[in-house]
Amino acid sequence: MTMRRDQLRWNGWGRLGESMGLSPARERWLLDELGRRLEHRFSTPPALVSLDQIRLAPCKIAVEIQSALRAACGDAGFSTSALERVTHAAGRSLPDLLRLRRGELVYAPDAVAYPASEGAVASVLRIAADANLAVIPFGGGSSVVGGVEARTLRGQAGALCLDTTRLDALVRIDRDSLTATFQAGIDGPALEAALRPHGLSLGHFPQSFEFSTLGGWIATRSSGQSSSGYGAIEDMLVAVRVVTPEGVIRTLPAPRSAAGPDLNALVLGSEGTLGVVVEATLRVHDAPAVLEDRGMLFRSFSDGAAAVRDATREGVHVAVMRLSDTAETELARTLRRDPERRFDPAEIALGLLARMGYGEGRTALVYAIEAESRRKAAPALRRMLSIGRRHGGVPLGRAPGRAWRRDRFRTPYLREWLLDHGIAVDTFETAFSWSRLEHGHDAVLRAMRRAAELHAGSGVAMAHLSHSYTDGGCLYFTLLYPLDHGNEIVQWEAIKREVTEAIVAAGGTLSHHHGVGVDHQPWLAREKGALGLAALRAARTALDPRGLMNPEKLL
Amino acid sequence: MTMRRDQLRWNGWGRLGESMGLSPARERWLLDELGRRLEHRFSTPPALVSLDQIRLAPCKIAVEIQSALRAACGDAGFSTSALERVTHAAGRSLPDLLRLRRGELVYAPDAVAYPASEGAVASVLRIAADANLAVIPFGGGSSVVGGVEARTLRGQAGALCLDTTRLDALVRIDRDSLTATFQAGIDGPALEAALRPHGLSLGHFPQSFEFSTLGGWIATRSSGQSSSGYGAIEDMLVAVRVVTPEGVIRTLPAPRSAAGPDLNALVLGSEGTLGVVVEATLRVHDAPAVLEDRGMLFRSFSDGAAAVRDATREGVHVAVMRLSDTAETELARTLRRDPERRFDPAEIALGLLARMGYGEGRTALVYAIEAESRRKAAPALRRMLSIGRRHGGVPLGRAPGRAWRRDRFRTPYLREWLLDHGIAVDTFETAFSWSRLEHGHDAVLRAMRRAAELHAGSGVAMAHLSHSYTDGGCLYFTLLYPLDHGNEIVQWEAIKREVTEAIVAAGGTLSHHHGVGVDHQPWLAREKGALGLAALRAARTALDPRGLMNPEKLL
Repeated sequence: MTMRRDQLRWNGWGRLGESMGLSPARERWLLDELGRRLEHRFSTPPALVSLDQIRLAPCKIAVEIQSALRAACGDAGFSTSALERVTHAAGRSLPDLLRLRRGELVYAPDAVAYPASEGAVASVLRIAADANLAVIPFGGGSSVVGGVEARTLRGQAGALCLDTTRLDALVRIDRDSLTATFQAGIDGPALEAALRPHGLSLGHFPQSFEFSTLGGWIATRSSGQSSSGYGAIEDMLVAVRVVTPEGVIRTLPAPRSAAGPDLNALVLGSEGTLGVVVEATLRVHDAPAVLEDRGMLFRSFSDGAAAVRDATREGVHVAVMRLSDTAETELARTLRRDPERRFDPAEIALGLLARMGYGEGRTALVYAIEAESRRKAAPALRRMLSIGRRHGGVPLGRAPGRAWRRDRFRTPYLREWLLDHGIAVDTFETAFSWSRLEHGHDAVLRAMRRAAELHAGSGVAMAHLSHSYTDGGCLYFTLLYPLDHGNEIVQWEAIKREVTEAIVAAGGTLSHHHGVGVDHQPWLAREKGALGLAALRAARTALDPRGLMNPEKLL
Repeated sequence: MTMRRDQLRWNGWGRLGESMGLSPARERWLLDELGRRLEHRFSTPPALVSLDQIRLAPCKIAVEIQSALRAACGDAGFSTSALERVTHAAGRSLPDLLRLRRGELVYAPDAVAYPASEGAVASVLRIAADANLAVIPFGGGSSVVGGVEARTLRGQAGALCLDTTRLDALVRIDRDSLTATFQAGIDGPALEAALRPHGLSLGHFPQSFEFSTLGGWIATRSSGQSSSGYGAIEDMLVAVRVVTPEGVIRTLPAPRSAAGPDLNALVLGSEGTLGVVVEATLRVHDAPAVLEDRGMLFRSFSDGAAAVRDATREGVHVAVMRLSDTAETELARTLRRDPERRFDPAEIALGLLARMGYGEGRTALVYAIEAESRRKAAPALRRMLSIGRRHGGVPLGRAPGRAWRRDRFRTPYLREWLLDHGIAVDTFETAFSWSRLEHGHDAVLRAMRRAAELHAGSGVAMAHLSHSYTDGGCLYFTLLYPLDHGNEIVQWEAIKREVTEAIVAAGGTLSHHHGVGVDHQPWLAREKGALGLAALRAARTALDPRGLMNPEKLL
């Protein structure tokens, strides 16, 4: 098994013992700063519940069914242990963490199966169908929309979590076609490690990279930090195999087809409701030897956004472009500052720049150009500088880009630490067409601040433009607010509802890359229309007539 | 109405009186040359049947239904005339033309309706549902796979053709988002003309450009000659509105969404079986001011293919890359030669090049770089030369590219003229991954030659690589063979069956951009799988429970 869940936090993000890595002085400084902004005296949150305090309902799966599942998956591939059931009980959304920290496990599965082959997956689905069990496909378990909750339909006899992480092999590399075929339970680091000896890379780096799987990326229409350069998962996917309760769906590994609607697109974003993604063939590329990370400062968010938009439209090959708005730029500055350091050249430079108009409204862009060699990276670097200057950007050199790359997978640990201090961090993401983006940015920030004030007394709201397209971009919003201990879930629900409503009302998509799960489901008909949903539900019913697969999610 | 069908050939391609434009001397030379290659004495084909000789079955639609349709579409928007029924009876495939030339109209619709608004389309579907009529959406009618045949299911009371070409308005341009919204019955030239005053272009140029519509492009997952530069229709489509028998499907104009499976992808390639595409929002781009068309010669098809593949992978912005194989390169040379010209510098140059290894196996690449200015085109031109040289390519200057651009929409007229002389031209297109492409090229050429020999005595088979992706490319095959007069359809069916079988057996897709219609349908389950088809059929049934829409096509 690739993913050693015993080395991961059962009630939080990531690996045991790992953190954002702030020094105690920095932590104090940050808490003071946030305390000031949130007008918040930090209450000590309730003590974390330990794993052995958790009370689970007895497993509802009959012993003979357990035996059949054990026969299909092997003794090591089936478990009803508390550890397995608890570590497969929730994703990693804010409400998931809030519940786990209190020891509330509303949706723990009755058992966990780890099939190690496509045939074993089919057997598990057959046994589950006969025993009337719900089946919840589970990869890395990093869903932030409730996508892996072990829900059941009324009348179902129990919930079986199907963990895909034993399906973690590289199946083949097609060097001529620059494609690689993997079993879909492989996680991000293992996938990149398997490609590295061949000089190849997939280039898909969602924030969850270390704790998410290929099958999960496909099932949730995942987008990564480098998707500006290498595309999102739908651009990478050539062909897929999905085991459904009615049999296997497989698509043809051809670069394009006009033979009817694209079945890959039906699987992408299906969130485990059609079946289990077991194998996928992906477009890969030569691993870049040179990573040129840079920063640039703009006078305003609209200047920065215009530069990002132009770079996208002019086809500059930039792997990453991330433009923080003014509030996020300031918070990043706070995080970056070392309170023990008196002489800080960066702060002095910022002071000078403020006098040149890069003051209150300034925004920072981080971008990365990846290439075979420095020489090959040079034209894109030059074009980025030139496009940036056109919109008043001043180069900030390598430091901001390097800091971003160093911490790119570490920021979720900050959320853990803030929760320890009674501060909630939630994120909202959407995509707007360019003509709606500035209005959308304002409207959602306003809704976040209003909701935080109403339900938490105060809040810090910010955003960055994380992905750019010729016709629009993804805004990724972050909201910090003081937790109302004892009332956390109700508080979260109210804020989530009001902010999501603002996103949809402003013409944004319900999700640019987090997916739907249960948290976004109430709004799905607003985006797809009742008839669109009916068509998707009909396709689902054809593949899963009894409704085994991931009940109550998405559709 | 944009498209004046009375100015078009009812029994052939394109505009009345238009031709490929060869001089009589060139025509004689070409016929001699083809006669030699096809070992064929040209028999005079049977005389064309004239329109007034056509016998149509009486219209089966009851008078009160006709009145209702007339009320929905206006008097000018409904017709049961012979001209309308005949011009909407078939697409433009080889068997379509063979049948039309003999006056055989197997699938003429009973009437043609031209709704001029989304509401009128909905009314037509409602009336058709009540009257149990099949509805065949019809845009330009350029299908080459039988996609617009007015078939009916057993028990249906008649066939109504729904011509979309009155839905031809530009709805709005969103300059900030670089998108344009059109009604879907607009044809290629009208669409580009509407964008031109805004300095914009869509850049979608299928061979049928002049006689096909936006809705048709979407419904058939169309790809154009410039798709290497601007993407195929699925890359351009942001949002769509489709009137189905159960109501309207509309998608959100956002640049990307992870809110469940992409509904645009369900509409793309649905071939009128779900409903009528009435409106679409598309990504557009600044119209290029400079078109740099060039040619390059390679020693072999694999050298040329390697150059095209590298240019694609290195992201050189090339609008068009079209690599002819050896046979097509030689036929193009024949077509290009002026038999009345004694001194032909190009022929002399080719003679010299032959001694340098660019002889028997040589292949010609045509490519086009489109940009804002010469200066902006220069880097891509340089990179193309450098990549070409890496694979032994020698530049052929501007002439081949210019000739290609001049004739890009005229070659179908050549097919008419060849049919007049008893020579059939059929085309087959597919896409292979790069690792299968050379084998696929050989296998399909072999199958074409074998089928032509068996069923026509001889044949000339050739291909070009028309579209390139990082993981593979589209091969577009052309087959010329002598017609077996009186037995044309049986002859065509046998050849079509054997060649398509070879394509599928070699791992190619059933269609890269022509679609499925009725001609490719027998093989569709081989590509999609029975379960994949079941899912698509279920979605269709949700939108069209009675099976009104384009019966017997695709699914």
